[in-house]
Amino acid sequence: MTEHLVTQFDTDLNEIRSKLLEMGGKVEKMIHDSMKALVERNTELAESTIEYDHEINRLEVEIDELCLEALVQRQPAARDLRFITMAMKIDTDLERIGDKCRNIAKRARELNELPPLKPYIDLPQMADLAAAMVNDALTAFVRWDDQLAYTVCHRDDEVNLLNEQIQGELLTFMIKDPGTITRAIKINAIARHLERIADHATNVAEMVIFMVKGKDVRHLGIDPK
Amino acid sequence: MTEHLVTQFDTDLNEIRSKLLEMGGKVEKMIHDSMKALVERNTELAESTIEYDHEINRLEVEIDELCLEALVQRQPAARDLRFITMAMKIDTDLERIGDKCRNIAKRARELNELPPLKPYIDLPQMADLAAAMVNDALTAFVRWDDQLAYTVCHRDDEVNLLNEQIQGELLTFMIKDPGTITRAIKINAIARHLERIADHATNVAEMVIFMVKGKDVRHLGIDPK
Repeated sequence: MTEHLVTQFDTDLNEIRSKLLEMGGKVEKMIHDSMKALVERNTELAESTIEYDHEINRLEVEIDELCLEALVQRQPAARDLRFITMAMKIDTDLERIGDKCRNIAKRARELNELPPLKPYIDLPQMADLAAAMVNDALTAFVRWDDQLAYTVCHRDDEVNLLNEQIQGELLTFMIKDPGTITRAIKINAIARHLERIADHATNVAEMVIFMVKGKDVRHLGIDPK
Repeated sequence: MTEHLVTQFDTDLNEIRSKLLEMGGKVEKMIHDSMKALVERNTELAESTIEYDHEINRLEVEIDELCLEALVQRQPAARDLRFITMAMKIDTDLERIGDKCRNIAKRARELNELPPLKPYIDLPQMADLAAAMVNDALTAFVRWDDQLAYTVCHRDDEVNLLNEQIQGELLTFMIKDPGTITRAIKINAIARHLERIADHATNVAEMVIFMVKGKDVRHLGIDPK
């Protein structure tokens, strides 16, 4: 392989890397905006967040094309091949996170039309945790940092715990006063979307561990040793 | 490329194809079994379905390895490259469907401990639709059949409609009698899992259209013309 080719391939990989980080940043923005739309009862922000999902979808398509192009042009082996095929899986996870944010924004739009049930405290906390997990999972990917990836996997339990807490609390509301059921179901759906966002981040983190370690730890239970 | 290599590569592609179909068949079995465990209140079947998910996870890992191997050894271009990278995305969708079936089986196990709320009619219908969508999406993939893939995308609306019907009905139950809330929430969760299984099948079908047409129709709205 000539020096020219190596350089060109590095440029390709850098472009994939930076597009993925761009996509990750935009997904994080969607998580925060959909939550802000809910907490501040800002329906305009809910609308623009729903609209913004197209941008995420466009980026998935773009990254896939970049990856296919790099595979055809460069025919990479081992490490780079793994990086590129993982990038193509990861952009799908990011796209699905975008879908979930769009759904949260839709529920926020509906809830903003109804009287508040209670102040939102746990949901924004869940959203912050999930967004940080997405950020760290992607950082771990571009830096080949399996240790950071492990911390993402472990934080998933925290999010699941918050989700269960919220579900229990909403159940109590509904049983005490059936007039709260419609709202409680929507809030419950939001908690579940956040929980699934954290699951996607965990999936990405598991792929990073696979990529770095070279052996597949997916579905086998995560153990950093 | 020598004749020997072409043949060997065909063998590789056939192996990926048949492993994916095997995985699809097993995922369909999980959809049917988790539903049977619910409808027939068969907790033993629920347990074995939860356990069976490991088999699906193992297949994802195996197919990914086959694909990476084929990419390294054969360095395919255009059509085959697209097939292999799509296979790596599709096995992730199948694996996530397995997760959803496991969750359905868990909810079935819990519901089997409680008095029946009502006979299950819509849920098995939803499950049959979703399983058929998974089957057709995979058939479309291995046969490069974009027309079949379009029919999968269109059937997603049917499943969404059934889901909304079920949700409306459960809401009525809950408002009339708060004693039904715990069970209704679990049944609701099952409906939502089935809806997401259909979403995964739709995602696969969209990828098939992308693969066959060579241009990306994902997220752009599906139009068979």
